[in-house]
Parts: sequence; structure tokens; C-alpha cells
Amino acid sequence: MIQGPVAIILAAGHGKRMKSEKAKVLHEVCGQPMIHYVVEAARQAGAKTIIVVVGYGADQVRSALADEPDILFATQTRQLGTGDAVKACHALLEDYQGPALVLVGDEPLVRPQPLADLLSRQHGDAAACLLGTAIVPDPTGFGRILRDSAGRFLRIVEQRDCNAEEKQISEVNPSCYVFDLPGLWDALDKLDTSNAQGEYYLTDAPAWLQSMGRKVVALPVLDADDILGVNTRQHLAQAHAIMQARIQDHWMTEGVSIVDPRNTYIDGRVTIGPDTVIFPFSVVSGTVKIGAQCRIGPFAHVRDGTVLDDGAEVGAFVEVNRSHFESGARARHLAYLGDAHLGANTNIGATAVTANFDGRQKHRTTIGANAMIGSGAILVAPVTIGEGATIGANAVVTKGQEVADGQTVAGIPARPLSNRS
Amino acid sequence: MIQGPVAIILAAGHGKRMKSEKAKVLHEVCGQPMIHYVVEAARQAGAKTIIVVVGYGADQVRSALADEPDILFATQTRQLGTGDAVKACHALLEDYQGPALVLVGDEPLVRPQPLADLLSRQHGDAAACLLGTAIVPDPTGFGRILRDSAGRFLRIVEQRDCNAEEKQISEVNPSCYVFDLPGLWDALDKLDTSNAQGEYYLTDAPAWLQSMGRKVVALPVLDADDILGVNTRQHLAQAHAIMQARIQDHWMTEGVSIVDPRNTYIDGRVTIGPDTVIFPFSVVSGTVKIGAQCRIGPFAHVRDGTVLDDGAEVGAFVEVNRSHFESGARARHLAYLGDAHLGANTNIGATAVTANFDGRQKHRTTIGANAMIGSGAILVAPVTIGEGATIGANAVVTKGQEVADGQTVAGIPARPLSNRS
Amino acid sequence: MIQGPVAIILAAGHGKRMKSEKAKVLHEVCGQPMIHYVVEAARQAGAKTIIVVVGYGADQVRSALADEPDILFATQTRQLGTGDAVKACHALLEDYQGPALVLVGDEPLVRPQPLADLLSRQHGDAAACLLGTAIVPDPTGFGRILRDSAGRFLRIVEQRDCNAEEKQISEVNPSCYVFDLPGLWDALDKLDTSNAQGEYYLTDAPAWLQSMGRKVVALPVLDADDILGVNTRQHLAQAHAIMQARIQDHWMTEGVSIVDPRNTYIDGRVTIGPDTVIFPFSVVSGTVKIGAQCRIGPFAHVRDGTVLDDGAEVGAFVEVNRSHFESGARARHLAYLGDAHLGANTNIGATAVTANFDGRQKHRTTIGANAMIGSGAILVAPVTIGEGATIGANAVVTKGQEVADGQTVAGIPARPLSNRS
Repeated sequence: MIQGPVAIILAAGHGKRMKSEKAKVLHEVCGQPMIHYVVEAARQAGAKTIIVVVGYGADQVRSALADEPDILFATQTRQLGTGDAVKACHALLEDYQGPALVLVGDEPLVRPQPLADLLSRQHGDAAACLLGTAIVPDPTGFGRILRDSAGRFLRIVEQRDCNAEEKQISEVNPSCYVFDLPGLWDALDKLDTSNAQGEYYLTDAPAWLQSMGRKVVALPVLDADDILGVNTRQHLAQAHAIMQARIQDHWMTEGVSIVDPRNTYIDGRVTIGPDTVIFPFSVVSGTVKIGAQCRIGPFAHVRDGTVLDDGAEVGAFVEVNRSHFESGARARHLAYLGDAHLGANTNIGATAVTANFDGRQKHRTTIGANAMIGSGAILVAPVTIGEGATIGANAVVTKGQEVADGQTVAGIPARPLSNRS
Repeated sequence: MIQGPVAIILAAGHGKRMKSEKAKVLHEVCGQPMIHYVVEAARQAGAKTIIVVVGYGADQVRSALADEPDILFATQTRQLGTGDAVKACHALLEDYQGPALVLVGDEPLVRPQPLADLLSRQHGDAAACLLGTAIVPDPTGFGRILRDSAGRFLRIVEQRDCNAEEKQISEVNPSCYVFDLPGLWDALDKLDTSNAQGEYYLTDAPAWLQSMGRKVVALPVLDADDILGVNTRQHLAQAHAIMQARIQDHWMTEGVSIVDPRNTYIDGRVTIGPDTVIFPFSVVSGTVKIGAQCRIGPFAHVRDGTVLDDGAEVGAFVEVNRSHFESGARARHLAYLGDAHLGANTNIGATAVTANFDGRQKHRTTIGANAMIGSGAILVAPVTIGEGATIGANAVVTKGQEVADGQTVAGIPARPLSNRS
Repeated sequence: MIQGPVAIILAAGHGKRMKSEKAKVLHEVCGQPMIHYVVEAARQAGAKTIIVVVGYGADQVRSALADEPDILFATQTRQLGTGDAVKACHALLEDYQGPALVLVGDEPLVRPQPLADLLSRQHGDAAACLLGTAIVPDPTGFGRILRDSAGRFLRIVEQRDCNAEEKQISEVNPSCYVFDLPGLWDALDKLDTSNAQGEYYLTDAPAWLQSMGRKVVALPVLDADDILGVNTRQHLAQAHAIMQARIQDHWMTEGVSIVDPRNTYIDGRVTIGPDTVIFPFSVVSGTVKIGAQCRIGPFAHVRDGTVLDDGAEVGAFVEVNRSHFESGARARHLAYLGDAHLGANTNIGATAVTANFDGRQKHRTTIGANAMIGSGAILVAPVTIGEGATIGANAVVTKGQEVADGQTVAGIPARPLSNRS
């Protein structure tokens, strides 16, 4: 029993211009596959069930989304156009009556709000089809929205079929619809392939519904960024830039100083507290939680699974991965911290390293509060360093070793200082 | 006895949209608090006494400027508008007769020259008030300058009071004035609070002076960048970008190659000699003096208090802090040099470190000319390395140790090589 | 016996505004001297002999191009203008009859294709002179191309001689010609110095040839980027930015993901396989060959002479220089690899270093497949590490040492583990 509203996301295309062995919708924007953003926008707009139509690279796409219980898959076996792709969902939705949001998987910048607006408006209007449209400065390449003199939707004219006057129309069809089911199935049955490509076009459905006396409404709820379609690596880079600007604008509004936004990379899964300063040439990627009044220095690389408590500091040429810095902990220059827990006010010296990978698996390093890890010290995980302990310069704390609270160790392998001549 | 000309800088506002615990004017642009730039512009324009009006975060602002003997403070206890803020200076200036430059502390990009122009023009014109104005492409938000048909100043109309025609005026009031004292006090006494906010507006003063038959002149001496007001973190980032472009343009004109200006950060306190090349992803911050024909590699981090003599080289992933490189000294890859003096032609190996901080204080490292510091060597300061000495790979030169001229040491702790089996 | 077509490249100018001790045409754009690009464009357009006219910094320019057998040099002893500069080639070309492409050495962005077009068109038209022109949005500073009502070339008018109407002409002369020799010598003999600078202008030659009844054609084959002339460090930075955009666009079209093109530097001598991902803040410089599906992490520095086989990985704060990574080899964080060969799937730990420079010369490091180089290990080259060997954390493998296949060594100096207590 399918729970609605339903979203159908078309993700079967090849994306030849990407020149890739990877399915197009799996190429990443700001650290996550493109399709992730479309799925998430559909969810936030209210979709309870999401059907992803796969084709080229189907196994890759299924596997990338395998862990998400609200996603079902439909397979388009032949590449017969967008109409055919949507038809591939018919069997899954045989018994479903209600709205279906139809989106394309290669427009990763679509925001949830316009989609929510479309869904709520369809509910109110009892329309057979609502088209989400955008008014853009350069409509080249898009289908144009034709309206009658009263402003009512007439039909979509593809770029190649536009006459000179129609080419001037700036309202375009980015392939974002809400259809009422099962009305859409009737329309799709009527689509034919009498066009240059010999394909079934979903874009013919709205006009057919209209011709049957069904209500069709086009609403310019999307903006130019929402509808950026990614077909090349250049588009991918453009999508990255726009997404970065959105993410950074959000955190600046929340009180984070980003010294030079053009020279900063912040993943969409990052949260940051107020009065934290992020200096140029910093990368914060993955799911990361940064507290207030932290300092992310130039050339800092903060990675997935990291938590920085208030006032922690990650400096230049420091990489931090799946680690937790308690308040006031700091690694100011040239260090690698992986799978590590740093107690409050712990200081990591330059070129100190947690050797967390033994060639087979990762191990954890635990460091107590107020410890001093000397320059060049290597902590071969798993190790435990006590509170207020001191590790000498270039010391190697070996696997399984425990350094007691307040103890000082040095050398290779590290031994308590009093035991050395 | 106050020495003139006087500058009054309004710095009492909260800056709510910054969402910060820091006073707004203390947020940094290119490494220095915003208000620093305004103070410096006033100084360079000729102001001998600077009165900073503090309110929100008063203690922070006083403390940040405490060491500057030409700065006095006036406190605005209530937030009753810009007119009220200026009135807070009355007591300090009771006996002063002469020009007062009035500026706002959150426009850090104002250049000294237009301010100097205003001061000299006021002197020539014996005007009661000179307004420094700017003609900008987008005047939205600013008060507009109304002039009569002969081009003479009439009054300022705030954005919210503009009719359709007035909204088209592109000459705006960025709150930059020269007033003749004590005339300003008369005007401020006449200001009332019959406006939406119930505040005293300094912007009403010029028209009142004019109505009293005093000479008021508006001069478009400022440009669009000069008047960028910082009210959000986004504005702060914009100010940073414009200031960077100014700084870099200056050094390129002086013969410095900046390979990719958009990917370079150079603090305003840096000086650089000709034919030095700065590669992408470099940060030079604080008071730094770089000679001629130096090479600042990609990913170099050159920090406060550093001096690089001609032909020195700082390479990739190298941080240099409060250190002096003599001519030809070089650290080409992955190193930290803090509180260090490097003799001529000294070579620092990859991942070598001066451990300058012992948890309590910083210590110095002195390295003679032509020394070779091996890869991974740690110099636990204070240490002295002689001329032509060689430090072995991963050696630890311990605190207080002196390595003689020409000597080679290795191991942990480092011992002369001949003493090791 | 000179082989044609011939290219003459004017490279005698001082470039005073660069404020440099280096000859202007030797300043670098994307890692190579400006003149290199002009020479290369002439070659690719078909030039068999290239004559570089040197003057200011002649020795530097000769020396920079000394290894290229198709380049001859002519010396302009006095600075008497572009006509005089071309005349300096007369002796070398006394016996040559055929086309001569004339270019300036400070327009590094000129592409080969328009030059090839000019050469082939000259051949077809048997013209005495073909001018390569450009139609640009802002013609200020350039000589304008005057045409008659039928569109035929009339003459070039310099900026300073333009009347108001001529200033509006957007077709400009970027000093890119094909002349038929020896006709050019006749024209140059007729040039005089009756102008403000008292110099001989090459720009007067086309009109003189035309006046003698010879065929002169102006062809707008160049675009605005092609003709960027570099006279300041600011121009140099602009040229860099345009060249970067061209290089990156090429590789994105070939299937390379460049996550943030504005924050990436890729030299023109780099080749990259499909599905390789280059993360922000990466520098790939010099002659580098990167395979398919490689990962160039944030803050990676890949330098000249490096080869990365398919699936290799260079991570954050890693510098790789003249090294070869076999398939699956990886250095993920903080490392320096110079003159090294890494076998397949070898893993380099954080802060590991190949110490390739002994103060006098560079030595090689050879590492077998599946080796594990521990964090902080220093390999003092020359060394050989066997297949599947393990080097302990902070170990120092000393000069000349060989670690056997499968062996584990540790300590300073590194010893087999079984030999240590």
C-alpha cells in the first residue's frame, strides 16, 4: 500500500557528456550525489514515497540509495523518453490515487519550498496537472510555456519547435510537475512517438489533459538556480558554486564569520555555532558539528564525523577525521587526527599524528584533558593518553600503550622519562 | 586642551544582524578590526584627536583601542540615535573650536584622501557643514541628497520618506561629515525625536544649519566602495574582498607577481619587494616584511612578525611565525618555524619543526648560516644550531642544547654522530 | 636556408610597468614564460622557423629559448619602434621568399587556430598583408581598423589619433600579421619617424602596401582573450585566469571532475584521465600525467615529472615531485614524496617523507608494491623498500639501506624489528 504524496524522480539517463563510468545522478555536488538533493527536496516538500526510475547504471543508483526505506525503484529498460520513464512506475502505483510530484534527478538545486507550494496548490485546485515553471534571463534550450491572452496555460513548445516569437518567451519548463493519479496514466497511454527522436515525451501530457477538459495550471514557483540541469562536468561545477553560496549564506546569517567565502568549502551536512571564524582555504566536509567561537584556521581540513566543542581550534595544515575536540582543545599546525578524542584544552604539537590505520582497520586514540602531545609524536592507535600527560617530541606511543595521568614519555618506543638515562 | 582637527567616530551600535557577542566595530577585515581602518583613515586625513563614541560592547572597544594615545572615548548611554551619539562628545569638546570630521565605525573601506579633501575644503569655504557624498549605482537603503535647480544642497531624505522621484536620486549620504564646532552643538540641541524610531538623527543637522543661513555643502568625494556599511557577516566578507583587491593591486603595481589574486590573502600590514612571486593558496597575515625575489610557494602560511630577506623561500604547507629568514634561507615543504632565526642559505627539511611553545611560554631557535635541518627534525626551543651544522632526520634537539658550527647530530635526543655506535 | 613559413615574434620591449629585472616575455603564465605560448601557437599554426627579436634582457630571452632548434634570434639594438624591430630580421631572411607571421611576445593567449587560418588565407589570396583583427567590447588603447564603405581595409588609426567617430570602432589591431616577403622589406624602408615618439611603426606598413596597389586584407579571426597584452602584473594575473579557465574547461569536457574550478590550479602541461576528481585547493604544476579515476584531494600539490597511474590518490597537504605512483598507491595526508617510485597499493603514512636532497644532489627512493610506510617515517634516499615491507612510525631508513620484501623495520636508524628488545 503506497503512502502519498508520491514523488517520481527520473534518473535513468546516461549523461554521455559527463564521459563517466558513473551514473550521472551519482556525481557529487558539495559532497553528496546529485540525486540525494532531489530526494531530500521531495521529502521536505512532503513526499512520503519516492520512486526513482533507474536505467543507465541502474545497479549503481539502487545501491547508492539502498539504505533509504521510503525509496522504491522502477526500471526503464529502453531509453524511450521521459513519458516512457514515468510509465515504468505504473505497476508500482496501480492502486494509488493522489498527487505525484514528478522531478528529474539531474537538477540538484531544486529547493523544497516551491515543491511544497505546488503540492499544496494542487490539493486546493484539484488540478490534473500543475507545472512548476521558472522565468529566466536566458531560456535557450528549455521548452517554453505558452499561455493564452488571459494568462492560462496552453502548452509547452520545445526549443527546436519555437518560432521567432516563441523564442522570446522567458517562462520555461524545467520538468517539475504535480500530476493527479491515475489521470497521468491516461495521458501517457495517449502519447505517441511522432517526433524527431522517436520518443515518448512527458511534456506532451499537460496539453493532452487540458484538451480533455482537465484543469492544468502553470505556476512560476521556481527560480533560475532551481532548474540548473547537470549534463556536463562544467554544469557540475556550476551547481557546486551555487550550492556553496547557499550553504555559506545560511551560516553567515546565523552569525558565523567566513572570511573569504569564495575560498572556503563547507559541506551541506555541517552545523556551525555563532562567532566561529572560518579562515580562507578551509575545507569542512561530511557530517561535522562545529561549536561556537571555534577557530578554523587557514588550510584546515575538517572531515566527516568530527565534533568540535565551543572554542576548539583547528589550524593550518591540520586534518581532523572522525574526531572529537572538547572545549579549548587545539591542533594549530600540521597534524593528522583520525578517530581521536581530545580532552579539554589538550594541545597537539606540529606534525603530531594519530596513526589510526594499521593496514586492516581503524583504531581509536583517547587523550585526556590538558595533555601536551609533542611535536612529531606518533600515537599508534589504539592508545590512551592520560589527563595532563606529556608526550615528547618525535616519540612513538605504540599500539595498546597507556600513558598514565600526568606522566611524561619520550623516545621510540615511548618510555617514561625517569626510566631513561 | 584638545588638538584639532578632531574626528568623531560613531561606534556605539549593536549590530544585531551580526549575531555576535563581539562589538560590531571589532569584527575583523583583512586581519584588523573594522574600526582600525576608520581611525587610520581619519589620522591620515589629518585628524589630531579622535573621539570614539562607544555604547554597546563599550568595554571591548575601549580595550581594543586602549594603546592609542590620540584616541579619547565618549559613552552613549542610551541608544537614542546618531544625533544623540555625537552629543555624547560635547563635554570633551566644550572648549574646542574648529572642524570635526564625523564618521561611522562600520564603514571600514573609507579612504583617507576624500576625508582630507573634505577637511581642506571646509577650511577654504568656512562652511558650517560639509557632507561627503557618493554617487552609486544602487542607492537603495541610503538617505538621498536633495539639491536645488542650481545644484545646491537642500536636505537629506531618508529611504523610507522618499517619493518615487526621490528614489531615483543616485547621490547618497553615507554619514561622513565635517562640521564646524561649536555650530554643530546648536544644531543638535534643536533636533527632536518626531520620527518613527523616536531617535535624534544627525542627518537633520545639515538642513537645520542651512535654514539658519549657515553654509552647507555636499561634495561627492566618496565612491561606492568607500561607503560599504557592515551590518551582516555577508557585508564583512564583501568588505574583505574589496580590501584584498586594493592591497593586492597596490603590490602588483609595485612589481610583485601575484599568480592568482583571487586565491591569495595578503594582510594590509605586509610589505613586499619587487620580483617576489606569490603562488596560489598563500596566506600572508600580520605585520610581515618580505624582500625582493622571494618565493612564496603554494600553500604557504607566513604570519605576524616574520621578516624574509631577499631571495628567501617559503614553500608548500610551511607555516612561519615571528621568524627571520636571511637571504637564501628556505623551507620548501611541510614545516613549522616559530620564533626562529635562520641564517643565510639554511635549508629546512620537510616536516622539520621548531617546538617553540612549552605549554607556558614561547622560546627562540637560532640557526646559523648554511645549516641543514633534516627532515622531521624537532628543535625544542630554546636551542642554538651553529653555522653549517647538520641535524639528522627525525632527530630531537632538546631544550637548551647547542649544536656547534659544522657539527652533525642525530637521534632522540640528538647526539653528535661520532658518539653513536 | 630558412624553412617557411616563418614567424617573427617581437620580444625586445622593456615592460617598465612590470617593475622587474626579468625580461617581460619571460614572466610566467600558468607555469611557463609568456613567450613560450606565442612560440607554441606559431608552431602549431605551421611556422617552421621562428625568429625572436630580442632587445631588453636579450641574454635572458636567448638563454630561456636556447634549447629550441627552430628558434633564431635577431637583436634590436636601439628601441626605435616595432617597424625597426622587424627590420632587425632582414639579414636573417635575405634569401627567404614566402609568408611571415608577425606576432608580439606579450600576447600569450593567442590561439594557434586563428594564426593557421591567416596563413592559409594568405596562401589562397596571395595578399601582401593579412591583418588578424579582433572585434572587442572595449577597444580603448588599441589601434582601430578603418574600412571603406565596401568593408575593405583602409588603414589603422592609433588610439591617440582617433576622432570621436573612430573611437567608436570596435575592430582593433592587436599586432598580428601575415606579410609576404620580401614585400615587407620595401614597406619598412619607406616608414619614417614623423610621429610623436620618433619611432618606426609596423602599423604603417599595411596602408603603404595598399597604396602601392598590393592586396591587404583585415580578417577578424581573433577574439578578445587572444589579444590580451601583458604590460603589468595585473595583466599577468588576468592572463593566468583566462588560461586556467581554458585548461580546466578542456579537462572537464574530457570527463574530469574539477569540484571548484576557481580554486584549482592546473598547468597546461598536465594530462588527466576520465573520472579523476580534483578537489578544491589543489595545485598540479609542470609536466604531470594523471590516470583515470585518481583522487587529487583538497590541498594536494602534484609537481613536475609526476606520473599517477589509474586509481592513485594524493591527499591533503601532500607534495609529490618527480615521482611515480603505481595503481592504487596512495599518500592521504601530510607527506612529501620526491624522486620516488611507489609500487601498486603502497600506503604512505601521515608526515612520512622521502629525504631526496642531501645538500648537494637528489637521490631516488624505490618502494615495492603493498608496502606500508609508517607515519613520520623518513626515507633518506637513495633507499629501496621491498614489496610488502613495513616501516615503523618515525623510523629513519638511512642512506643506501635496503629493506627486504616483507620485512618490518623501526627506530632511528631503522633496524629489523626482531633485532630490537
